[in-house]
Amino acid sequence: MNIDGKAWRTIWLEQGGRSVGVIDQTQLPHRFSTRSLTTLDQAAEAIATMVVRGAPLIGVTGAYGLMLALQADPCDASLAAAFEQLNATRPTAINLRWALERVRDRVAPLPPAERAAAAAAEAAVIADEDVLMCEAIGAHGLELFRSIAAARPSERQHEPLNVLTHCNAGWLATVDWGTALAPIYKAHRTGLPIHVWVDETRPRNQGASLTAFELGREGVPHTVIVDNAGGHLMQHGLVDAVIVGTDRTTRTGDVCNKIGTYLKALAAFDNGVPFYVALPASTIDWTLADGVAEIPIEARSPDEVTLITGLSKPNAADSSADVLRCVQLTPAGTVGFNPAFDVTPARLVTGLITERGVAEASEAGLRSLYATESAGTDGAP
Amino acid sequence: MNIDGKAWRTIWLEQGGRSVGVIDQTQLPHRFSTRSLTTLDQAAEAIATMVVRGAPLIGVTGAYGLMLALQADPCDASLAAAFEQLNATRPTAINLRWALERVRDRVAPLPPAERAAAAAAEAAVIADEDVLMCEAIGAHGLELFRSIAAARPSERQHEPLNVLTHCNAGWLATVDWGTALAPIYKAHRTGLPIHVWVDETRPRNQGASLTAFELGREGVPHTVIVDNAGGHLMQHGLVDAVIVGTDRTTRTGDVCNKIGTYLKALAAFDNGVPFYVALPASTIDWTLADGVAEIPIEARSPDEVTLITGLSKPNAADSSADVLRCVQLTPAGTVGFNPAFDVTPARLVTGLITERGVAEASEAGLRSLYATESAGTDGAP
Repeated sequence: MNIDGKAWRTIWLEQGGRSVGVIDQTQLPHRFSTRSLTTLDQAAEAIATMVVRGAPLIGVTGAYGLMLALQADPCDASLAAAFEQLNATRPTAINLRWALERVRDRVAPLPPAERAAAAAAEAAVIADEDVLMCEAIGAHGLELFRSIAAARPSERQHEPLNVLTHCNAGWLATVDWGTALAPIYKAHRTGLPIHVWVDETRPRNQGASLTAFELGREGVPHTVIVDNAGGHLMQHGLVDAVIVGTDRTTRTGDVCNKIGTYLKALAAFDNGVPFYVALPASTIDWTLADGVAEIPIEARSPDEVTLITGLSKPNAADSSADVLRCVQLTPAGTVGFNPAFDVTPARLVTGLITERGVAEASEAGLRSLYATESAGTDGAP
Repeated sequence: MNIDGKAWRTIWLEQGGRSVGVIDQTQLPHRFSTRSLTTLDQAAEAIATMVVRGAPLIGVTGAYGLMLALQADPCDASLAAAFEQLNATRPTAINLRWALERVRDRVAPLPPAERAAAAAAEAAVIADEDVLMCEAIGAHGLELFRSIAAARPSERQHEPLNVLTHCNAGWLATVDWGTALAPIYKAHRTGLPIHVWVDETRPRNQGASLTAFELGREGVPHTVIVDNAGGHLMQHGLVDAVIVGTDRTTRTGDVCNKIGTYLKALAAFDNGVPFYVALPASTIDWTLADGVAEIPIEARSPDEVTLITGLSKPNAADSSADVLRCVQLTPAGTVGFNPAFDVTPARLVTGLITERGVAEASEAGLRSLYATESAGTDGAP
């Protein structure tokens, strides 16, 4: 997607394939900068510290991390150790394990000397597939948006479609296009008037920083709200649809996504607002049936709750500006707790928008689109 | 309640009654400072800028604001103008209008020369009544907490009672004790082990700043979480009860409170967690039957969403500390929207804890406790 008129992806190869370039998402929205990852450790650190984040992008970064490890040492032990190191960086998103297994299974049978090149090729395929899947999600989601817009009362037909999203499931969370934001970009580019309510998404504010940055650079009308506001907006008819991404979806349609998603799903259900989840197949965990009970939820540092970083504004005590500063929100010594994801039960999900079309959020719904992929999993007929 | 071992109220008379002292809540939790209000304009400004906030405390401040106006000029026009100026400062909390009407109706029949003293007396009565009502709410809420704690499975009897609260409905929101926090203080002081999940409460973070400050100074165990986290905690059995305050409650039991309260009520309902609202009678608006449709919701500045203030922490670019700084969270030019309250329908409320006992959140429930007060209102039998 576009930044100042130039098309970008979130991850690319540099230096003849000896280095992986990424956008440093910890600096957005205030600074646009890139980083070069040249070692396994750097790739693992970039995932763990959220220089790159978003389930699909984590997967692709993991794949390229294996490539970097194999460039340094292509032996079996190196491959196994790199797999474990990368897989341990973030526990919730399933795409990471999926991509790592795909690269490992592709290169393990090869002679060591061929492994790095094969890993590079496989990572590139995963990245390109991700772009195609996201664009397909966008196309299917656009059809849905057109239906929802057309079904509004005639007196509201002239208004833009009001869509609420939580966290960032845009192109910065993937390689390009995004998942939840792909239909929004498609709508905007094809002339369907659309306005996005952007949940700021505490504690890391991916909505206020990344989603607002993306939408602003693409020219999509949007308004940032606190996470608390969505229910009120829905009660007053100001939201036509909710669309979010997911870090892991069970085969039964339970959706694990950024903390707070469940609260928006409850409000949508209570107000008859459709609640959609956009995801590529790589996000489905066919081994799980009960999301609340079975999906591991990452607990991140309480510092993400008690401290916050932003662009310093001049005040009476300080005339400087344009500096990123960290400020403390709580009294000294306050204890915080910081679960990073929650699980929205399938019963609250109107539909799953995948690259193959829209499925009911249920085992039958997902199997109808993914007969081959789901074969042999628990509960298969 | 206590700050460093000294008992405080939030509002008091100074200088022989010519000045009103208040705690400056915009500086908490980082600085404890007080302000002296000596004119009507200062009282109105203190309410509008949230130097004082919380529905009961706004009411008492308004009452003392009338006193200050009448000290300067006790004529009919002065009284009427002061009433209008103070009543316009915050539109949602009903306690403000209730307290202003009470003082006006008390002093209007008197000769002008007697009005300021009568206003001072009436404001003092309102303040003292508020303390007694809050303490009574605490006693009724404590009984509820004891029942909830005792009803837990035997293997959880040794754990503290886990109570979640949103925003600040503690002693800083009233004159003393608080509404939602009064039962928590009673529990802690009487030895019922209790732990409080404190919603940070964006955008103004009254939970992370005021509630955490209050509970910390009283020694009540607590943990600050982002507003997004409560649903996840309830899904995993980590919340035994939710208790919040309210800025206005309809005679039918719909509860208007800080934005985001509705989302917590939905999550509590979905997980079978009791959801209680604590309120003095002055918060009930007997004229209204439909909270979502009828209660005016204040829209505050979008700057409260896009900017945040905290205590500056040293970083590479700045070795200074202990300075309150404002930082920007969003990209330059981002539009925000900032509704300050939402309405929780009565169907989601387990009970209303009042100074007269616990009522069902319904017209019948409220009338059973307030037969005299509700007489003559719409829908009266």
